[in-house]
Amino acid sequence: MIETAGPLVAIEPDVYGVPGAVRITLNRPDTFNALSEALLDALQRSLDDVAASDARVVVLAGAGKAFCAGHDLREMRAEPGFEYHQTLFARCSKMMLTIQRMPQPVIARVHGVAAAAGCQLVAMCDLAVAASDARFAVSGVNLGLFCSTPSVPLSRNVSRKAAFEMLVTGEFIDAKTALERGLVNRVAAPEQLDDATRALAASICEKPRAAIAAGKSLFYLQLETGIDAAYRLAGDTMAHNMQDDAALEGIQAFIEKRAPRWRQT
Amino acid sequence: MIETAGPLVAIEPDVYGVPGAVRITLNRPDTFNALSEALLDALQRSLDDVAASDARVVVLAGAGKAFCAGHDLREMRAEPGFEYHQTLFARCSKMMLTIQRMPQPVIARVHGVAAAAGCQLVAMCDLAVAASDARFAVSGVNLGLFCSTPSVPLSRNVSRKAAFEMLVTGEFIDAKTALERGLVNRVAAPEQLDDATRALAASICEKPRAAIAAGKSLFYLQLETGIDAAYRLAGDTMAHNMQDDAALEGIQAFIEKRAPRWRQT
Amino acid sequence: MIETAGPLVAIEPDVYGVPGAVRITLNRPDTFNALSEALLDALQRSLDDVAASDARVVVLAGAGKAFCAGHDLREMRAEPGFEYHQTLFARCSKMMLTIQRMPQPVIARVHGVAAAAGCQLVAMCDLAVAASDARFAVSGVNLGLFCSTPSVPLSRNVSRKAAFEMLVTGEFIDAKTALERGLVNRVAAPEQLDDATRALAASICEKPRAAIAAGKSLFYLQLETGIDAAYRLAGDTMAHNMQDDAALEGIQAFIEKRAPRWRQT
Repeated sequence: MIETAGPLVAIEPDVYGVPGAVRITLNRPDTFNALSEALLDALQRSLDDVAASDARVVVLAGAGKAFCAGHDLREMRAEPGFEYHQTLFARCSKMMLTIQRMPQPVIARVHGVAAAAGCQLVAMCDLAVAASDARFAVSGVNLGLFCSTPSVPLSRNVSRKAAFEMLVTGEFIDAKTALERGLVNRVAAPEQLDDATRALAASICEKPRAAIAAGKSLFYLQLETGIDAAYRLAGDTMAHNMQDDAALEGIQAFIEKRAPRWRQT
Repeated sequence: MIETAGPLVAIEPDVYGVPGAVRITLNRPDTFNALSEALLDALQRSLDDVAASDARVVVLAGAGKAFCAGHDLREMRAEPGFEYHQTLFARCSKMMLTIQRMPQPVIARVHGVAAAAGCQLVAMCDLAVAASDARFAVSGVNLGLFCSTPSVPLSRNVSRKAAFEMLVTGEFIDAKTALERGLVNRVAAPEQLDDATRALAASICEKPRAAIAAGKSLFYLQLETGIDAAYRLAGDTMAHNMQDDAALEGIQAFIEKRAPRWRQT
Repeated sequence: MIETAGPLVAIEPDVYGVPGAVRITLNRPDTFNALSEALLDALQRSLDDVAASDARVVVLAGAGKAFCAGHDLREMRAEPGFEYHQTLFARCSKMMLTIQRMPQPVIARVHGVAAAAGCQLVAMCDLAVAASDARFAVSGVNLGLFCSTPSVPLSRNVSRKAAFEMLVTGEFIDAKTALERGLVNRVAAPEQLDDATRALAASICEKPRAAIAAGKSLFYLQLETGIDAAYRLAGDTMAHNMQDDAALEGIQAFIEKRAPRWRQT
């Protein structure tokens, strides 16, 4: 298998002319960005680096004709042992959870095909913008390998029966259907995909970093608890948020009917 | 800040000509019904009073141009301490949970704007009817204050990505979108909003009170458990429900192909 | 009450000309397939038998004009004791959970009316195909008996406010609405209902049995846990799945750009 000449993952800061918007691009176009071990490692490092940076929003994209076609099946097939695969899926799951746990919102920019672990990436991202001709499937079952790990975020994005149907039939859905079901937030014509992604990224970059980071963390935490605990966590998060200079200035500006004067850090 | 001359919360029994339907109206129209401490207290008392009354259904509405614009930011801004805000959000959360835990279904009657904690009120209500020109946002992030407490019921009403998008962009959605996403049950032309609310309220008032109360309680309880426990709780609730005179008469009437003769209490 | 001459439940193997597709038909058409104790028992036995068989997919259907109208109210009304009803609902819940826990995907084939426990059956099935003139309700509240047990799967299929509205109003929704809300997967003209059901069943029968069975089990298990545990369970399931001969052959065939040569067992 020939790897591309460049790095497996490309990181571009201030992409789309939006300061704070970082794009991470999967760069194995000859394999439709199949998640080989090397690519998984590179993506994990990239996410960790960006998480610790002053980035405010992350766009996750794929080079070439597809967003991501899933795991590298050739590589997986060459290693028949249970422990190898257990470790591989644990590493992949760790990378997926990094997306949810990093402080910046992550936007999937989806074109072409998002299949199996590629569809899982879309589901794990906080937000997703899709080209109108993008297609989504959890198609492992067609090869006898049920998309169990992709089912985790998929079933937390779309309704139960819709997720189950995709998992047992392996069939593709189009971007419009993905939008209606909640798998993506916005659909744009292919030539306007970057504009639509930029608009969403720019909106997030306008907001104070600390409020976004604490809010993202709270959002996923409270989803996993009962409603009483959720309210306790959320109330404490908001009370802390009210101590931020940015919130105090933002509310003061609202009272004075003017724009906030935030020093962006 | 000038308070309106009347009470902060108006309670009207047998509203819309429907016996048993009580309307609670937020009455600070000059502030778009911003939830000041005084209004939160008055709303808590009103909900407690109605919960203990013989009301069968509650309509929650707002006076003036908007349903509710959220917390009273001027009041919040004047008190910078963490403990003050922690207590404030805890009181607000208690009020929100009262809506879910009172025995009567609560219908949000939404017109104009439902923003931040106002959108949270809509999400916490069991049901919602919106005017076609109503708009919904969790817009605190625009001021640097992430709508953490509103995220609790919002994320239990609409899909994960749609909720996250509203929380990080602060953007408004219209009534049609709110309907499609599950935030409201019905949308009506502004001049038919009360007719649509009346129809929903009247349908509930026709049903035996005890069945509705036990069913509402069970509904939220079982949502927070695994499916085995959910079925045990639900089975016991139904077996108790079968002991009610109203259920025995209702089923007997069904068998005899006639209308039930219920003594409404 | 006259029972039909035939068995209460009919089991047909290789139905629709699809080897591995088994149809279980509720056969009390004179009562719209009301779930009497005898029918519940027969259905439980049928599901247990099919679960242990070499069936690959199950279609659940109703004879006569309706899919299923719910419990047998005449029988329920004749027995007023709490313990009788507690036991009855426990038996019914056990049958419902059998659908979720058997290794084969179960497709509800819905025509006419699916009401109360009949609507619950649709919600419990993994998949559902409905005739365009089918109607769905959890209508017990009209008789004073809140559909508490049906609320368990209904609230796990459709959004919270939509489920609550159906439960407190008892109103019917049509097939198009059921599709939009996630209660069914596909809607077909009445004369094409069997074709649409066949297509879905055939797609599942093409896939390796073990992958489907392990995937179905994992799907519901991970839905009830937090996302960390969900990923651990899913990763282990996939690593085991990778040890199957069918998966190894399926992936090898993909690499060699040919169809898999599976020995169906």
